[in-house]
Amino acid sequence: MAVAEKVARHRAAGYDVVVVVSAMSGETDRLLKLATSVHAEPPARELDVLLATGEQTTIALLSIALAKLGVAARSYTGSQVYIRTDNVHGKARILEIDARRARDDLAHGRVVVVAGFQGADEEGNITTLGRGGSDTTAVAMAAALHADECQIYTDVDGVYTSDPRIVPKARRLDRITDEEMLELSSLGAKVLQLRSVEFAGKYKVPLRVLSSFEDGPGTLITYEENEMEAPLISGIAFNRDEAKLTVRGVPDRPGIAAQILGDIGQANINVDMIVQNVGADGTTDFTFTVHRGDYGKAGEILKTVAKALNAREIIGDDKIVKISIVGVGMRSHAGIAGKMFKALADENINIQMISTSEIKISVVIDEKYLELGVRALHDAFGLDEPPATRPRARKAERASR
Amino acid sequence: MAVAEKVARHRAAGYDVVVVVSAMSGETDRLLKLATSVHAEPPARELDVLLATGEQTTIALLSIALAKLGVAARSYTGSQVYIRTDNVHGKARILEIDARRARDDLAHGRVVVVAGFQGADEEGNITTLGRGGSDTTAVAMAAALHADECQIYTDVDGVYTSDPRIVPKARRLDRITDEEMLELSSLGAKVLQLRSVEFAGKYKVPLRVLSSFEDGPGTLITYEENEMEAPLISGIAFNRDEAKLTVRGVPDRPGIAAQILGDIGQANINVDMIVQNVGADGTTDFTFTVHRGDYGKAGEILKTVAKALNAREIIGDDKIVKISIVGVGMRSHAGIAGKMFKALADENINIQMISTSEIKISVVIDEKYLELGVRALHDAFGLDEPPATRPRARKAERASR
Repeated sequence: MAVAEKVARHRAAGYDVVVVVSAMSGETDRLLKLATSVHAEPPARELDVLLATGEQTTIALLSIALAKLGVAARSYTGSQVYIRTDNVHGKARILEIDARRARDDLAHGRVVVVAGFQGADEEGNITTLGRGGSDTTAVAMAAALHADECQIYTDVDGVYTSDPRIVPKARRLDRITDEEMLELSSLGAKVLQLRSVEFAGKYKVPLRVLSSFEDGPGTLITYEENEMEAPLISGIAFNRDEAKLTVRGVPDRPGIAAQILGDIGQANINVDMIVQNVGADGTTDFTFTVHRGDYGKAGEILKTVAKALNAREIIGDDKIVKISIVGVGMRSHAGIAGKMFKALADENINIQMISTSEIKISVVIDEKYLELGVRALHDAFGLDEPPATRPRARKAERASR
Repeated sequence: MAVAEKVARHRAAGYDVVVVVSAMSGETDRLLKLATSVHAEPPARELDVLLATGEQTTIALLSIALAKLGVAARSYTGSQVYIRTDNVHGKARILEIDARRARDDLAHGRVVVVAGFQGADEEGNITTLGRGGSDTTAVAMAAALHADECQIYTDVDGVYTSDPRIVPKARRLDRITDEEMLELSSLGAKVLQLRSVEFAGKYKVPLRVLSSFEDGPGTLITYEENEMEAPLISGIAFNRDEAKLTVRGVPDRPGIAAQILGDIGQANINVDMIVQNVGADGTTDFTFTVHRGDYGKAGEILKTVAKALNAREIIGDDKIVKISIVGVGMRSHAGIAGKMFKALADENINIQMISTSEIKISVVIDEKYLELGVRALHDAFGLDEPPATRPRARKAERASR
């Protein structure tokens, strides 16, 4: 196995290595199907017992492959290496890790192979952390062992300034802050599970995103970066799966937003951006975006709400995209928003909605301008150049955008 | 699953139920192949981690199937239910079971589903008990819980007086003693693993052999049976896989047997029956049987030994079979051996070797007489009739045969 060789190389280079593995590709889905073929709603406790076999198979096989390469290794299930979680089966949270056993193996020169995605609750019941939980396990083990670095092997070779399929000039970032990473992840740049990044941030575990398939430095996720030295913008994310809905002419009084979104939430529809303009003549317009797959359902619900509110009309558009620029530099540097809007205006791209957070500015535009817009912004902020040559946020004062 | 329905029926009948399961058919072999495809000699510890997933899959699926039938159940791996073993990976022995957890579940009306074939050593490493270990787990759980009965579901519906494929009149036994069962098992009547029967005997667990596929009372294995009431003979076993070798004219002095069998044992060849006749003119003949597959190899080894011992000649025959009659009744009843030999003589079957133990008499005959011999003995001891109508060992004194 390629993984075994990678581990053996690290070991040969003198590092103590703890490997956290996932189930083999497709295995978790196979087990899920097996369970639901028996019972459409399998008890969560028993489903966890079943799913946990996926990683248990991998740890055994990896340890066997390491033995083949002459590398001493020991495999451990989540419960064996004392990954204690709460008892929420299927999406348990890690409460604590007793790393003594792993530390003892490392002291004896053995590689420790740990089953990701799983643990045990206080009573010893097997739990799983939910999809992507293997990343979280790795971060938690790294934190418990005060590891120098936690390397996450993925199908990409790092975090990019934007999607290379859209922006050919997109560049791999050498480093990115955890906050930027969180914003990029939540904006559709799926590299790491959000939970593992949050977890890494909490314990300040240096996290590196690498490719499973090729060698390379990857991208290092850092914490407490000196903002002054950070590039203005680290990356540009986008999301094609959005649709927007506007309720026009609703009464401009407290409680309206809650009333409109209450029924939407009840229907389990997640709302992303929300914008409410300043009203005129006692009414206002209320706009929000939802996943494109929920567009029809959300529209139906709105009809009822709009009637009750005596709203003027409902308009919607499911041919939109959201583009966001992300960077901790914008905390301390003015003019970022203006630069963004100008870059889009220069391409004659109309901005339909704007929403901002501490380190992110998002706009909604017509979907046909997606590629044009992302590339224009990538150029405007000089993301294809190495950070050293780019303008940096050097001003000490916090500036408004 | 058929098993789930069986369990549900027992539960509905008011019994507390603990189910011990094996891996699904073919699963253990699949996992073994997976391991050896990575490394021809996988480390035993890691192989156990891998193999243990087989039963873990089954306990989860059975518990899910029980939930589907409305039966509350909880699954446990070997280590979760505290099946503590020694650390001999691949063929560990159960040292103790802490049944508190299972007892607690039973008290709450839950079915307990336990992974057979596996446990954990003192340090929490996963161990497996070796093939057939699930039966042993079941017996051990039954002993720890002081169960009323331990039911072993197999592909046969009980223990028979002989192989029904050879003896059409063979009859299912309602009960059999553990000693008889052990003799029958070791003689080739493969119903239960020897270890599980030994284990059951040690803790006096009432063991019942049943069919997984059809309903029926099966065969109960009992202990401390009142020998006086036992049938003379319980069953007739046979073994087709034997071959015999004779060294003729070896010096009749101490140490000869050890010398002949020493090299055979060194070559990892198991010897079954051993017969040495009283010698004449300072020499004797030494005969033993081996598995037919080892016949050639054993013959080669004997050549060297015979030369060293200055033996007259080596003769061999791999066209033989062993037939054995088994019954605790022969302990207290005379004439069994005579009756056996007469039955064979009446059919003109020549006896080549004879060997006896407390509750068994074995003979070696030409393989072409196998069916004839077994049927003749079955008739002679009236095994096709229910035990109540058969002659019983009623004499109190222990008689020689």
